[in-house]
Amino acid sequence: MVKNTVMKNKLKELSFGQAHVAEASAVLLILGDKSQYDIEKVVNYSIKHHLIENDQAENKRKRIETYFATHPEDKEETGLRLDLGLFSMNLMHVIRAFGYDSVPMRGVNFNDVLDYLKISEKLFPIMLLPIGKARSHGHDHIREDSKNFTTIIH
Amino acid sequence: MVKNTVMKNKLKELSFGQAHVAEASAVLLILGDKSQYDIEKVVNYSIKHHLIENDQAENKRKRIETYFATHPEDKEETGLRLDLGLFSMNLMHVIRAFGYDSVPMRGVNFNDVLDYLKISEKLFPIMLLPIGKARSHGHDHIREDSKNFTTIIH
Repeated sequence: MVKNTVMKNKLKELSFGQAHVAEASAVLLILGDKSQYDIEKVVNYSIKHHLIENDQAENKRKRIETYFATHPEDKEETGLRLDLGLFSMNLMHVIRAFGYDSVPMRGVNFNDVLDYLKISEKLFPIMLLPIGKARSHGHDHIREDSKNFTTIIH
Repeated sequence: MVKNTVMKNKLKELSFGQAHVAEASAVLLILGDKSQYDIEKVVNYSIKHHLIENDQAENKRKRIETYFATHPEDKEETGLRLDLGLFSMNLMHVIRAFGYDSVPMRGVNFNDVLDYLKISEKLFPIMLLPIGKARSHGHDHIREDSKNFTTIIH
């Protein structure tokens, strides 16, 4: 989370000059960390927090192994995109619940942002999310009617 | 959205036998469609719905072109993952607001699901989302404290 004014201005520059980056109260840079998909880490976390008992560890380990064997891409950058998409929308709802607005941005030169903020290359940039109190109405949007992209099979 | 009992049982089979797939009131299969990233389609949609005037079309077209030139992966399957992640979490909040629960699933043999439901290969499977009234308490979860993965730069 970047609150520093000089840095927000630099982030604006690295986002094709989009003004709301510098005007935001804070700018979140959301990053994914593939190392969190480590099976031992997940199993040990579950034991430590008493979500499973020791004798359930082997079963949990096997279930995760089967899952990653079916979808190896889910523990790569591809997987981070979906998981962080879920996370980010949840975060936007939380931000809104506290009375703030936010705007998810991908039109950003993330490589230069990582360089500028000296962030490890092991972390994978997902989006920039400026947050603040809306002083003016945002762009209008029209949502596609769900009937146009939904099929119900009875 | 699959409500058919025979089909829900087949989807359970293609999801490593996870019981909640068959027990759910309905099972959503969420699919992504890359053809929606077509720039002309986006610009024409904006004009049709009066979000922009005709004379702003060229500017909008150029901005999207610049964005996709910086992040070509965003109009591929990789991009669908993030966008559908955002969409799916929003949908889960809507489902919850109507008093239902849902469970996002990736432990699914999606290739066989597409075959079984005769879905075009142009659509990209993102997740299975069984929906229903919770009759019992789900698995416990412990969320990592945000302090453990957040850095604030003042």
